[in-house]
Amino acid sequence: MALIVQKYGGTSVGTVERIGRVADKIAAQRKKGDDLVVVVSAMSGETDRLTEMAGQIHDHPPAADVDVLLSTGEQVTIALLSMALAKRECPARCYTGSQVPIRTDNAYSKARIREIGPERMRADLDEGRVVVVAGFQGVDEDGRITTLGRGGSDTTAVALAAALKADECQIYTDVDGVYTTDPRVEPRAKRLEKITFEEMLEMASLGSKVLQIRAVEFAGKYNVPLRVLSTFEDGPGTLISYEDDNVEEAVISGIAFNKDEAQITVAGIPDKPGVAYRILGPIADANIEVDVIVQNVSKDGSTDLTFTVHHRDYDTALELARKSAAELEAREVSGNTDIVKISIVGVGMHSHAGVASRMFEALANEGINILMISTSEIKVSVVVQARYLELGVRALHDAFELNKGPVSPEAPENW
Amino acid sequence: MALIVQKYGGTSVGTVERIGRVADKIAAQRKKGDDLVVVVSAMSGETDRLTEMAGQIHDHPPAADVDVLLSTGEQVTIALLSMALAKRECPARCYTGSQVPIRTDNAYSKARIREIGPERMRADLDEGRVVVVAGFQGVDEDGRITTLGRGGSDTTAVALAAALKADECQIYTDVDGVYTTDPRVEPRAKRLEKITFEEMLEMASLGSKVLQIRAVEFAGKYNVPLRVLSTFEDGPGTLISYEDDNVEEAVISGIAFNKDEAQITVAGIPDKPGVAYRILGPIADANIEVDVIVQNVSKDGSTDLTFTVHHRDYDTALELARKSAAELEAREVSGNTDIVKISIVGVGMHSHAGVASRMFEALANEGINILMISTSEIKVSVVVQARYLELGVRALHDAFELNKGPVSPEAPENW
Repeated sequence: MALIVQKYGGTSVGTVERIGRVADKIAAQRKKGDDLVVVVSAMSGETDRLTEMAGQIHDHPPAADVDVLLSTGEQVTIALLSMALAKRECPARCYTGSQVPIRTDNAYSKARIREIGPERMRADLDEGRVVVVAGFQGVDEDGRITTLGRGGSDTTAVALAAALKADECQIYTDVDGVYTTDPRVEPRAKRLEKITFEEMLEMASLGSKVLQIRAVEFAGKYNVPLRVLSTFEDGPGTLISYEDDNVEEAVISGIAFNKDEAQITVAGIPDKPGVAYRILGPIADANIEVDVIVQNVSKDGSTDLTFTVHHRDYDTALELARKSAAELEAREVSGNTDIVKISIVGVGMHSHAGVASRMFEALANEGINILMISTSEIKVSVVVQARYLELGVRALHDAFELNKGPVSPEAPENW
Repeated sequence: MALIVQKYGGTSVGTVERIGRVADKIAAQRKKGDDLVVVVSAMSGETDRLTEMAGQIHDHPPAADVDVLLSTGEQVTIALLSMALAKRECPARCYTGSQVPIRTDNAYSKARIREIGPERMRADLDEGRVVVVAGFQGVDEDGRITTLGRGGSDTTAVALAAALKADECQIYTDVDGVYTTDPRVEPRAKRLEKITFEEMLEMASLGSKVLQIRAVEFAGKYNVPLRVLSTFEDGPGTLISYEDDNVEEAVISGIAFNKDEAQITVAGIPDKPGVAYRILGPIADANIEVDVIVQNVSKDGSTDLTFTVHHRDYDTALELARKSAAELEAREVSGNTDIVKISIVGVGMHSHAGVASRMFEALANEGINILMISTSEIKVSVVVQARYLELGVRALHDAFELNKGPVSPEAPENW
């Protein structure tokens, strides 16, 4: 008998009918003997409906009021799911974030969990009840309602799993696991049985939007085994946990990519200490996040600095870079919005030589020119021209033999 | 500077635009210096929308879950109103029932208020904030959400006014006060400046559906002056309080009527003790409420018993009466669904002789036959044939000079 925390997102509970199907799943699993704590999001569309009403009243409504408003979304879901379980004669009890309690700081609309009181949930579990909890919300020390911000329901589930020392935290979603890459780009992409927290973090931040980064960090920190699986079809999903030394690791686990970035280069900068700071400081001050940063060794007393920013920040960043370049008497500033970043990710790579060169070779064989290279312990990223996205991903998928094993299943039906 | 508790019902906050207008009213009154606690209902239609979803999931959903669901309705309103006040630079803070706290018993969906903690509201008022409270809801000692049942928001407002020792509790609604009778029946009906709690109870239970009976009882018990007034137009409304001996009372305050009743007569019952019980006992056991009961003195050793029940219970009650009549060897049972009850109400009548006879005279002058008569300290009710409703109400309105004074205003515009 295991203690499992499950989380169902907004699409999974998007209609009364779907809530019924989720209740079927839960009731069946409860019958098998598992103790279950179920975290749910607002029904899809509900948060947007509420936000729109708020927007008609106030352009910048107070965050505390927004939290009171939005937290009703999950509260509706817990009540409906609890009724659906009652209908199936599966004893259940539902909790808002305040009721659990899930204590947070008072950073309304982006609160962080401080502490969870597991006593009431434990009492329910001991009496055989399924515990249904509203995701995304908590309560501050003043008794006011808070929300955890976007994707907060994943974090709620992981935090509850940590507090209850659950055996596993299962995130139900509309895909059946984490894939070696995006199946829309490489149809032979394959579901991973396992992936490490670190790899998942790289995959997530690089654009495989299956799980919220914060939830993965949290799970890693508290060593909560995390499983991503489909609400809509059966299957084992993908288990995210710490590296298991007993298993022979694949060299790399997956290929991520990001189409949202643009590249800015400041060339011919007279090389002296502080150049990178003089250029990137004003950009950080403007709250613009910089992703890849590459500076090569200087040549003839001058150096080139290249970095990438999100498309939406490109114009501002370019202007700031031009200003800094003028002050530094750099030769020129250029930009390119027509790029894509492709990354190979895998904890295996740090114990295998030649992973990066195998990547570069595969791209070269396809005639793909690499604009930038950036590496970390468990990933290698390259920036290439946007038109090479599909070609590059498929070439790498082949080169690292990721399409060995079962073929990817059909896309989940939309029920 | 007064402390006022205001309550705005579902129609008054039925749209984002209306919430804005309510916020205008509140901000203006706050500027004048009054301390304000504002109780709001769910936006009109919201409770039905939620109830319908629940109905799709479970025919008889657990009441505790229903309360978790329905309480989101008012929570949405407090958040939106709080935002609207922020927009008008009127400092405010909103509370769910749990947060106040409004402590209730655990009779989910029809909970009764046990205790209110006024400390947090007081602290807000001291700091110049308007306090916005979700009506209709509370929290039991186990920390679970409860609702007070239909019309509970009026009760919330009165209870808060009692707990805070407020100067007045104002119930904003879509009519501009309590009328001498229904203006749709007697166009010359006139708004009452004042009415006593007892009169209001008689008026409310007799069909003038302006205020919830429970709220009026509560206000009377704690001596909270209650004012009914219009959200949509300015005016003093009607003040409901205890009898004020200094004011010369009108003999009667108003005329109420009820079209929902049907009459059943058991005639020729051999008169012996326990007859009324033998007939009405089985009807009470079937959970049927009996309103007027009349038994005349017996004649020739037999008596007649007549009573009224709601239309929906008529068939059942008639059958039960027939069964009892057979056991009692009564002569016959007859029924009449085509009746109406008209009542004159007024605390003044107990100190004025001849009120009842003036009523009977007025009806006789119009050729209206009285089927039943029933009296209490502050009211006289007659049952007449349904077709005499308008004629009877107008005759009585004239006879008691209720149409003296200002003419009733136009029906409120529907903004």
